[in-house]
Amino acid sequence: MRLEAVTVGTELLLGFTVDTNAAEIGRQLAAVGVRVVRRTSVPDDADAIRDAVSSALQRTGAVLITGGLGPTRDDITKLTVAELFHAPLEFDDAVWQAVLARFARIRRPVVESNRTQAMVPRGARVLPNQWGTAPGLWLEGLPGLAIMLPGVPREMRGLLEREVLPRLAERVGGVIVVRSRTVRTTAIAESTLAERLGEIETEIAPVTLAYLPGLMGVDLRVTSWEAEPAEADLRLAVAVDRIRRLAGAHAYGEDDVDLAAEVLDAARERRLRLAVAESCTGGLLGARLTAIPGSSAVFRGGTIAYDNGIKLTELGVAESVLSAHGAVSEATARAMADGVAARFDVELSAAVTGIAGPDGGTAEKPVGMVCFATRVAGVTETATMIIPGDRSEIRGRAAQYALFQLLRRLRPA
Amino acid sequence: MRLEAVTVGTELLLGFTVDTNAAEIGRQLAAVGVRVVRRTSVPDDADAIRDAVSSALQRTGAVLITGGLGPTRDDITKLTVAELFHAPLEFDDAVWQAVLARFARIRRPVVESNRTQAMVPRGARVLPNQWGTAPGLWLEGLPGLAIMLPGVPREMRGLLEREVLPRLAERVGGVIVVRSRTVRTTAIAESTLAERLGEIETEIAPVTLAYLPGLMGVDLRVTSWEAEPAEADLRLAVAVDRIRRLAGAHAYGEDDVDLAAEVLDAARERRLRLAVAESCTGGLLGARLTAIPGSSAVFRGGTIAYDNGIKLTELGVAESVLSAHGAVSEATARAMADGVAARFDVELSAAVTGIAGPDGGTAEKPVGMVCFATRVAGVTETATMIIPGDRSEIRGRAAQYALFQLLRRLRPA
Repeated sequence: MRLEAVTVGTELLLGFTVDTNAAEIGRQLAAVGVRVVRRTSVPDDADAIRDAVSSALQRTGAVLITGGLGPTRDDITKLTVAELFHAPLEFDDAVWQAVLARFARIRRPVVESNRTQAMVPRGARVLPNQWGTAPGLWLEGLPGLAIMLPGVPREMRGLLEREVLPRLAERVGGVIVVRSRTVRTTAIAESTLAERLGEIETEIAPVTLAYLPGLMGVDLRVTSWEAEPAEADLRLAVAVDRIRRLAGAHAYGEDDVDLAAEVLDAARERRLRLAVAESCTGGLLGARLTAIPGSSAVFRGGTIAYDNGIKLTELGVAESVLSAHGAVSEATARAMADGVAARFDVELSAAVTGIAGPDGGTAEKPVGMVCFATRVAGVTETATMIIPGDRSEIRGRAAQYALFQLLRRLRPA
Repeated sequence: MRLEAVTVGTELLLGFTVDTNAAEIGRQLAAVGVRVVRRTSVPDDADAIRDAVSSALQRTGAVLITGGLGPTRDDITKLTVAELFHAPLEFDDAVWQAVLARFARIRRPVVESNRTQAMVPRGARVLPNQWGTAPGLWLEGLPGLAIMLPGVPREMRGLLEREVLPRLAERVGGVIVVRSRTVRTTAIAESTLAERLGEIETEIAPVTLAYLPGLMGVDLRVTSWEAEPAEADLRLAVAVDRIRRLAGAHAYGEDDVDLAAEVLDAARERRLRLAVAESCTGGLLGARLTAIPGSSAVFRGGTIAYDNGIKLTELGVAESVLSAHGAVSEATARAMADGVAARFDVELSAAVTGIAGPDGGTAEKPVGMVCFATRVAGVTETATMIIPGDRSEIRGRAAQYALFQLLRRLRPA
């Protein structure tokens, strides 16, 4: 099946917003056998929307429209598309009740402009939006199929996965698909990884391999092009298995797997409870861990010892350690990890102290120098890394490396 | 001047690449007075490219095309556009010498397919590419103006800034610009904001207003279209001033301002030092504050009291408070804020405790219920909010609301 995507939003054309929905839509549709053959972005303007949508329908008979379904005045997608289908807008009490329920749940007042969200083109199927107030709409009729989704990425993604993909998959029967999987690695350079993987690209062909370096490490994406679903999945499974064996411990998971979730799982298996002591990451390591649902079963908490005085008073780092080695040192990291383990009564702890910049670097201790300590069942190990990047990258990578060191201790190869 | 953008690339439509060029192009052109009125993405397919480019030229007479100028087989943009202009491709020796020189410099062998990069449509101006091998092309003739740039972001950006923007600016006279400013609001729903702003869109016309809801709040972007620079700046200043007065304390800043930086500035002005006590945000509030360079002048640190036991032992919350009111209560938030202020010896503190979900909600205390406390110079105030969204959104917004409450205490209206 072929389909066109139309994105509505003046701010997209002005470059005020990067269109991340577009990639999400293309990938997800391809995985169920629907090819996006053209994508058009138009401003919040009825004529432009009408022209783009009707041309798309003429060419492919199917269009997925995002943006322009919110409650504010410039949200004109629904009205314009309804006119194209000669479908008058009608007040839908079920949608209205859902809007009211949502506002009651989040204890916000409903205002008059919200009523427009309950107006539905006659004959349209309402796609319930549990992530926001504007429902998606599935309108099928004389000019073809128009699927309308809100532009807010979280709402768009939720509706796409829950409501749109299953219906499209059923329609196309899933004959020929493009699918990919991603092996996630961390704490290893792209070039080192390429050396380890060697001639893998020849071995896994026709599956292709892409190296995607990012903040958290290098992702390895393998793609199967235009194959039957079972064949695609088999080829990808073989490629992923081969890559994981070659990458070793650095490959910590696949696709959307989070390293923090792996650490929590490993600690849970060993019945260990965890606390953290953070200086330069300032809470980021704790935030990574508590982002995972159910983390409270393992994670007790931590101390953000940003000021050196707090390292003394709250973590019991000895003044002699600080004055002899400095705040950014393996000795201080060790004392922080030991201190937080004792204070928080846990068997597992991690500490991070470093120089995130832009200021504070010296010749001996440059910006990006970060010291780590991990304590597992009474044994504390330390490490130092020089992390490249700006303040935000150094902090993000430092939190990731701290998690990687915890995982390596918890699951030795 | 109006122009359309056409992006060529099968990878973009499959969602393997996020199109960051598009935003860059929109913003840069608007700043010199050229408006991108439509953007179309098509696969590496001659028919699709021809159709998109000729439609664009019919509508606006000018098109900027990115992608499809490299040496590989599916790079067919140049050939297709040349045909549309009835301009035969001719071998250009100057371009060829530049390609050879570049390959010599980076010590790569030149292959036969590279020769196609030296083929130039008759009458086209070559835009030299010092960041890669494929030059840009500026082709003007019967159907209009076609500017072709390579799709590699670094090359595209270099050519845009060096070759394209100066020529376009000269053409439009450079006296007419599109400029915008953004008022950032938080802790107020889009629809409530729209009610408050009322008829503002009529009042500020021809400046337009866009509501951009996001994780941290609703951004209000005002744009002045096609005006002289001084006029644009004046109109925007009037609109921003009016919006800020109507939005009240919820408007915490403009453009790239971060609420955490505002809080740190306000605390610094009053010579107050800050600590945080976090339960459901698990370090996120500390991470927001320490993301700001120089935060150590104000922020001493904090306690992540994820486990209730830690609230007792590390923050001195009384067991009677926890058992009478529960961990998610204003009484507990107050005790946390008071406790961390005492422990960390600071005049300013904030505490957050809530239910981030997906589990743990009850009828009385649903997922999304978050209690806050802020302590300023001995006076602690509390608040409770029901925050919509998933776990990640609830936590992100809770950290933002905690910052908002700190700022409101530090800079009362």
